[in-house]
Amino acid sequence: MRALFLNATLKPSPAPSSTAELNAHVAQQLSAFGVDVEHVRLADLDIAFGVQSDAVRDGDAWPQVREKVLAADIVVFGSPTWLGQPSSVVKQALERMDALISETTADGTPVCFNKVAGVIVVGNEDGAHHVIAEIAQAAIDLGFTIPGQAWTYWNKGPGPGEEEYRTSEDREWTHSTGEAMAHVLFHTATALAQHPIPKPPNA
Amino acid sequence: MRALFLNATLKPSPAPSSTAELNAHVAQQLSAFGVDVEHVRLADLDIAFGVQSDAVRDGDAWPQVREKVLAADIVVFGSPTWLGQPSSVVKQALERMDALISETTADGTPVCFNKVAGVIVVGNEDGAHHVIAEIAQAAIDLGFTIPGQAWTYWNKGPGPGEEEYRTSEDREWTHSTGEAMAHVLFHTATALAQHPIPKPPNA
Amino acid sequence: MRALFLNATLKPSPAPSSTAELNAHVAQQLSAFGVDVEHVRLADLDIAFGVQSDAVRDGDAWPQVREKVLAADIVVFGSPTWLGQPSSVVKQALERMDALISETTADGTPVCFNKVAGVIVVGNEDGAHHVIAEIAQAAIDLGFTIPGQAWTYWNKGPGPGEEEYRTSEDREWTHSTGEAMAHVLFHTATALAQHPIPKPPNA
Amino acid sequence: MRALFLNATLKPSPAPSSTAELNAHVAQQLSAFGVDVEHVRLADLDIAFGVQSDAVRDGDAWPQVREKVLAADIVVFGSPTWLGQPSSVVKQALERMDALISETTADGTPVCFNKVAGVIVVGNEDGAHHVIAEIAQAAIDLGFTIPGQAWTYWNKGPGPGEEEYRTSEDREWTHSTGEAMAHVLFHTATALAQHPIPKPPNA
Repeated sequence: MRALFLNATLKPSPAPSSTAELNAHVAQQLSAFGVDVEHVRLADLDIAFGVQSDAVRDGDAWPQVREKVLAADIVVFGSPTWLGQPSSVVKQALERMDALISETTADGTPVCFNKVAGVIVVGNEDGAHHVIAEIAQAAIDLGFTIPGQAWTYWNKGPGPGEEEYRTSEDREWTHSTGEAMAHVLFHTATALAQHPIPKPPNA
Repeated sequence: MRALFLNATLKPSPAPSSTAELNAHVAQQLSAFGVDVEHVRLADLDIAFGVQSDAVRDGDAWPQVREKVLAADIVVFGSPTWLGQPSSVVKQALERMDALISETTADGTPVCFNKVAGVIVVGNEDGAHHVIAEIAQAAIDLGFTIPGQAWTYWNKGPGPGEEEYRTSEDREWTHSTGEAMAHVLFHTATALAQHPIPKPPNA
Repeated sequence: MRALFLNATLKPSPAPSSTAELNAHVAQQLSAFGVDVEHVRLADLDIAFGVQSDAVRDGDAWPQVREKVLAADIVVFGSPTWLGQPSSVVKQALERMDALISETTADGTPVCFNKVAGVIVVGNEDGAHHVIAEIAQAAIDLGFTIPGQAWTYWNKGPGPGEEEYRTSEDREWTHSTGEAMAHVLFHTATALAQHPIPKPPNA
Repeated sequence: MRALFLNATLKPSPAPSSTAELNAHVAQQLSAFGVDVEHVRLADLDIAFGVQSDAVRDGDAWPQVREKVLAADIVVFGSPTWLGQPSSVVKQALERMDALISETTADGTPVCFNKVAGVIVVGNEDGAHHVIAEIAQAAIDLGFTIPGQAWTYWNKGPGPGEEEYRTSEDREWTHSTGEAMAHVLFHTATALAQHPIPKPPNA
């Protein structure tokens, strides 16, 4: 089984990323189930804006990310929170995935069926539940199944501030919730691998 | 297998309800898979505001709805669209279900794990994707699994108007999407019934 | 100038309400500008579900709340956060206000034009920015003007918990932001009182 | 008085843009009030991801857009709808504007105070109210005032499709609503120009 973690921080490497660190924590839990884990930091790639699977222009890195999405059984979207909302980087990736809605496997099943998705959110301010709502709804549109409670998050109390997940000393709830997230992702992906949703009517 | 359709129209019976009619269409598809279907029109009941499972006051009808939720493998939330958002009636029910987050089966598994949920939206104006986002995120919080594309909707083109699902002649996309919705709900519920998510760590 | 604070807690009096207490803090700031302030705790009233201005049934308390809305220059919506979203009680009130979209003053101006609105959010968990988004969008639909940063909120760090605004010792940012909120509400309402938006074309 | 229309289509020129066309319609109404109008198609520029006002890297075009935002009294965000949500392009711009929250004029007033904002949405499918909610909430965070009903939108009936605003023959409601939008933007901007919100306490 394969899991792909998309890190949608606005910052390219080698800047430190709270999202990368929380993604890594949940990835470690999935590895313990024997899942092969791959990480992509989207801001390190030159991805074009658009809604198609093919390269939009020379150098467009989306096709290589798309291959990793198609190969994965589990996709985890990790997003920072800006203005209480998901990052533009995760939105850009979801828009490129819009094309997957009409792509099917050889037998006519939509390519995202039988894949599961989860959401990881970090921020220095409030917004996690809404970031989960936006990403989950988009992923459900695409055909991903979202297991119950397949998310975790970290942010601080009221108002913006300098503190962030990376440097916080209060991460116990976030980590415990992340362990439960890995559990439901693995077991739901397993259930769908063994009893896949067949090709839908009218597909 | 049992499915519960919650109709969150603002109007009690016997007023006609577009939500009831679209719920009935999807319910019929689930029945064809051999699923036992039950419908509850929330506005016909005297449900109290709150976040607890027990009756909040004398006559509070929530405990009887809660029993039906617990007995169901599939829960479908049908909501009208007001101001581009889900109805207060579906929010009231979801708030009462908030208590389920900390309730478990005998072996310690959260009660909503291994249940699946879908969303049906009607409106005379734009808002369906957002209604799906709000209800799906809340249901995921509770522990429900949302299969890919487990929704359908109807609304008209730009601006409000008198036309509604009940009387529209352009319902083909809505019905076809509803048939695919029943398909993914049934097959995902089946997969989870045969390979249930076990009790999570730290539960 | 008159301000109406709607408290959309799920709990009727005399239960303590964090929303009531934070509403009171901002109301005090508005009073200092000479604004007459009135508070309504919606859960104390028997309000029917619906989208009309007139009573839906015997005993429906909405018409008396509607009178207070119409008499106010400033309306503040105070909502708790449940499942990361606004309460069903504030949604119920906004649905009743839906009817105001098509009601006008004697000269044909929509009744909510030249009124301003703000949002106060409390919760034991993340969700404030989204509650603000939902209530602001609904109020804008109705015709209210939302001044920049006309909101404040309180919640704790990651995960649910027992702590709440009422008992927190860390309320400085929330209060300072609430003072700025009162400032923008008062000055924007004053600007619109002196230079009202006239009747729009096609109204 | 100056208005800036930001077109957040994913497609650079010279591809046709429904957003550009609906923006132009509303811009024409503002011009009739004597407002100087400027249009920026964000996808034609090389804007870096980030949350700062200064250039993030060589060639970053954000600083020149920021100058236009600061010079405008009215900012209109025009966004397409993808997956029921605002485009990544408008999110990228809003993230760059996040830095404006802590920038002030010479006397200490936040730079976005006394500016007004509106929202234009086009799509081939449902999502407009939510796009308005997301953009309005972000703009309110920044300090913009949103006048009542300062938006218009176009999309078609249920389900995705080829039809778009540009080629639709059913645009009357969209245009009439756009005229009212220009009316409230102009009059609210005028009211705030004549009675500006002063520097807030604690600023």
